[in-house]
Amino acid sequence: MTTQKDVAEKAGVTVTTVSRVINNRGYIAEETRDKVYQVMDQLNYRPNAVARSLSKKKSNILGVILPAVKHPFFSSLLSYFEEFAYQNDYKIMLCNSQMEAAKEKDYINMLRAQQVDGIFLASHTLDIAAEMKVDLPVLTFDRQFEGIPYICSDNLKGGKLAAEHLLAAGAEKVAYIGGSLELDLLSNQRYQAFKQRINDAGFKVEVYQCQLNSFDRQEYRKLAREIFDSARVVDGIFASSDLIAAAVIKEAAANGIRVPEDLKVIGYDDLELASLYSPEITTIRQPAAEIARKSVELLLKEIAGEEIEQKNILDVELVVRESA
Amino acid sequence: MTTQKDVAEKAGVTVTTVSRVINNRGYIAEETRDKVYQVMDQLNYRPNAVARSLSKKKSNILGVILPAVKHPFFSSLLSYFEEFAYQNDYKIMLCNSQMEAAKEKDYINMLRAQQVDGIFLASHTLDIAAEMKVDLPVLTFDRQFEGIPYICSDNLKGGKLAAEHLLAAGAEKVAYIGGSLELDLLSNQRYQAFKQRINDAGFKVEVYQCQLNSFDRQEYRKLAREIFDSARVVDGIFASSDLIAAAVIKEAAANGIRVPEDLKVIGYDDLELASLYSPEITTIRQPAAEIARKSVELLLKEIAGEEIEQKNILDVELVVRESA
Repeated sequence: MTTQKDVAEKAGVTVTTVSRVINNRGYIAEETRDKVYQVMDQLNYRPNAVARSLSKKKSNILGVILPAVKHPFFSSLLSYFEEFAYQNDYKIMLCNSQMEAAKEKDYINMLRAQQVDGIFLASHTLDIAAEMKVDLPVLTFDRQFEGIPYICSDNLKGGKLAAEHLLAAGAEKVAYIGGSLELDLLSNQRYQAFKQRINDAGFKVEVYQCQLNSFDRQEYRKLAREIFDSARVVDGIFASSDLIAAAVIKEAAANGIRVPEDLKVIGYDDLELASLYSPEITTIRQPAAEIARKSVELLLKEIAGEEIEQKNILDVELVVRESA
Repeated sequence: MTTQKDVAEKAGVTVTTVSRVINNRGYIAEETRDKVYQVMDQLNYRPNAVARSLSKKKSNILGVILPAVKHPFFSSLLSYFEEFAYQNDYKIMLCNSQMEAAKEKDYINMLRAQQVDGIFLASHTLDIAAEMKVDLPVLTFDRQFEGIPYICSDNLKGGKLAAEHLLAAGAEKVAYIGGSLELDLLSNQRYQAFKQRINDAGFKVEVYQCQLNSFDRQEYRKLAREIFDSARVVDGIFASSDLIAAAVIKEAAANGIRVPEDLKVIGYDDLELASLYSPEITTIRQPAAEIARKSVELLLKEIAGEEIEQKNILDVELVVRESA
């Protein structure tokens, strides 16, 4: 059987260099790396990560569970997460739970069985708490479980900023449109803080919520239509995602309602769509790149056995564009 | 050490049932599955997929290499791919090559070392052919390498449909705006077929191309501005993605050019954005779900040692909306 020593000899490098190339660690000149791979091909030497993982008790894989990889916020988060993980020699095993609790359970058990080193869990299902008693490092996003550290952006501040911006623009008949408020998600704090601030100003908030977080644009359109079909006059809308804000603006136009003249609309996330849309969408920016970077950092610390903060809350900001 | 037999006894089921739960194979009642997991927790039994993978020589993992998971077409494709893989007991190891050839090489070697059972490769880098001599099942998307089966949608038909629709709408001063035509991508056949059909009608095609496929919306806006900044009059534009079409429409509006009255714009992909935009974007629909389903099917056949077609081309269709 071919060994690393055979590869090193034929490539004219040290065994340490071969090992570094295989494990993708330390600086290796592109030329050297190519040479080593070439010799590995010639000698048909296959480094076996699975066997290595068994002996090292470390797989260098992070499991990532997302509710919907199709949603632009999550695909952006995933893209950055992958980038930072890669920089730290970690690979990603992707799980797209699509709101199915059974699938999420299966995936958590699969990731365990696969011996991933840690799990990043952005779950939107109702009953996952029991599965979370996992004997490996976990970091949750926008969701709080006892004893498990979490990361999120400052949803309370986001809701407050949205309310203050609409109030300053003169909105008095205000609606909130977003995902299900029944789900135990930290992102629902956006609504709580928004409502509080609007109430403090002496106004009420009408609520339109998706049945579950299906991330289905047809449902967004339907919800938006409900608003305009009712006799109720609305002059300010806070949407819990830019995708929903876009659906609202589109339905408003179909009903002859001008944005921002007749109706101010403010979104959330600051997706690429927000600046591409007409009118450009005023929004609360969640720092996807920073959330991803910090998440990888926290998970790697957990994996290394370090203590980390339970609450990790990143700042948000108001981005004023055209829709409000 | 706890064995599957211990788990089976305590859970009151057969060893076969425990094995099925662990391997996620065959029909298992939700109740039984929960019971088995519960006992596994109590006895602290951890099925070890890595060790199983070594003994079975099968990891049940598919590697997926995408040029940009952030691009809505690829995140949609990935979402469906994951869904069909999951239905077939396969997990996804995600690689986001972000146009870096070195990263792509690293990833291919990582996937090999990880002993994935097959690779789905949607690569946009220039020089990857050498790495493709992989001794495991590979399926490429929109890219053709000798001896390796590929899948794509019917780019030639897509380009032709776009040209015919613009010509029927009376466009004569036509431009194409898209990714780099230097890249050896099958998707560039869209341009070839479009140009041919426009030329056949006696008109020319102005070409605006991104330097590389960075999928950067700032670059799309810049390219779109170039068109409108030039003294050249354009009355029909074929954009190689709906994202680019949206950028074009946005820049047109900023220049007082009405779509579709003054300028017809036709996109590609049929992203969610296309029907959410104002005006709604007329486009060529690529069947992302079907591409994903077929890709998983083909890879699983390759893994099973079956012969599969080299060329797998799926149909596209024109979706007429408002922009052209």
